[in-house]
Amino acid sequence: MKIVTAGVLLIGDELLSGRTQDTNLATIAKFLAPLGVGVGEARILPDDATLISQTVRDFSERFDYVFTTGGIGPTHDDITADSIAAAFNLSISEREDALEALRERYGEDDLNTARRRMARIPDGASLIANPVSQAPGFQTHNVFTLAGVPQIMRGMLADIGHRIEGGAKTHQISVIAEGIGEGDAAAGLAEIEAEYDGVAIGSYPFFNNELRGVSFVARGRDLAQLKRVETDLNALVATLTHG
Amino acid sequence: MKIVTAGVLLIGDELLSGRTQDTNLATIAKFLAPLGVGVGEARILPDDATLISQTVRDFSERFDYVFTTGGIGPTHDDITADSIAAAFNLSISEREDALEALRERYGEDDLNTARRRMARIPDGASLIANPVSQAPGFQTHNVFTLAGVPQIMRGMLADIGHRIEGGAKTHQISVIAEGIGEGDAAAGLAEIEAEYDGVAIGSYPFFNNELRGVSFVARGRDLAQLKRVETDLNALVATLTHG
Repeated sequence: MKIVTAGVLLIGDELLSGRTQDTNLATIAKFLAPLGVGVGEARILPDDATLISQTVRDFSERFDYVFTTGGIGPTHDDITADSIAAAFNLSISEREDALEALRERYGEDDLNTARRRMARIPDGASLIANPVSQAPGFQTHNVFTLAGVPQIMRGMLADIGHRIEGGAKTHQISVIAEGIGEGDAAAGLAEIEAEYDGVAIGSYPFFNNELRGVSFVARGRDLAQLKRVETDLNALVATLTHG
Repeated sequence: MKIVTAGVLLIGDELLSGRTQDTNLATIAKFLAPLGVGVGEARILPDDATLISQTVRDFSERFDYVFTTGGIGPTHDDITADSIAAAFNLSISEREDALEALRERYGEDDLNTARRRMARIPDGASLIANPVSQAPGFQTHNVFTLAGVPQIMRGMLADIGHRIEGGAKTHQISVIAEGIGEGDAAAGLAEIEAEYDGVAIGSYPFFNNELRGVSFVARGRDLAQLKRVETDLNALVATLTHG
């Protein structure tokens, strides 16, 4: 089965200034994993139209799918739709079906010029339904353009699964070792990893109040093989903690 | 005063799979802002030595400073130090002063082969002190390589401020408007932004339980000017909420 990967672009000055903590990347990654799509790289970009366009073009070539979040609201700093259009040399215009979704929410009275901006969609794109606040996202080639507000972004994912042709699923198992350091386990860990082709084992120390330890996470595409890795990891931990 | 920018590279498969939520970017951004350094872009990279090397080289040219977090522990998946060395065509070897720091923590008995890996530093780099767990970070040209564990990363920042030549500081003010939508404010907001050169105004809707509204954040380098923007924003909000 083929390997299918996605790139994620998180757009907005507020993410780079530390004002806003992104959580969309993890939501997208956890949504894609069961579909058999892994995230290969993510970038956090400022509100810079040229940089957004270039990166979208680059990611669209490098990855099977691209997700962007942020910058599709009604204000002057919402430049993502125009940047996507520019990335693919498409014109962009107000679309009746998008406008219809906005009317549903705002009525004709509150649908002012600013809000109509949210109906500007690159030509040829297909809309992505927004069950939370109606203003739609859109798909241009292999690029999905979603809202930045986490609740809205999550709502839009419901209209994406059916558009994705997934690949080999990655499974993961984890084993927790309390009271040991990463360095105690490193040699045994490297041995286990070397033994199993196609399995990547990560080692993540934790320090929760008094509790110190390491989580081992093994990821791979063969679940039966991962079960054997889990047995080996448990044996390693037993040796280290009672040995 | 000149504009000084930094790029941030967050390294590790666990960040892309959604297992681990990054918080280091915000910590670094908030550390740099008072020094007069803005974060221009951040990337979240998998444990892929070639991609890490290429990106470090690219970022080192594009930005005044580069920060990397993650991948400098004792296990086989810790490949950041080698990738940095490769990025700059440097050799890498075990260093006595780094080893000394590790001895302080582990003593000679627990300083096994795996842990000694943490003393492998690209040639010519200067060490960055780690007051939390001793294993040092390091600086190579304009690139600061730090731990991924947030507590340790934060500790290392204390040894970085004195190495940075900051530029023009960016200040920010914010005005909160309860009970209005982004689209209500958009036209007035665009007018205010157009009036003030060098000020960027962002608009961020929030939905907390019953409370709905928008935060306006204005950022710029001239504090007196920002105060005038704040007055204008407050006037706009008053018109919208009582108008």
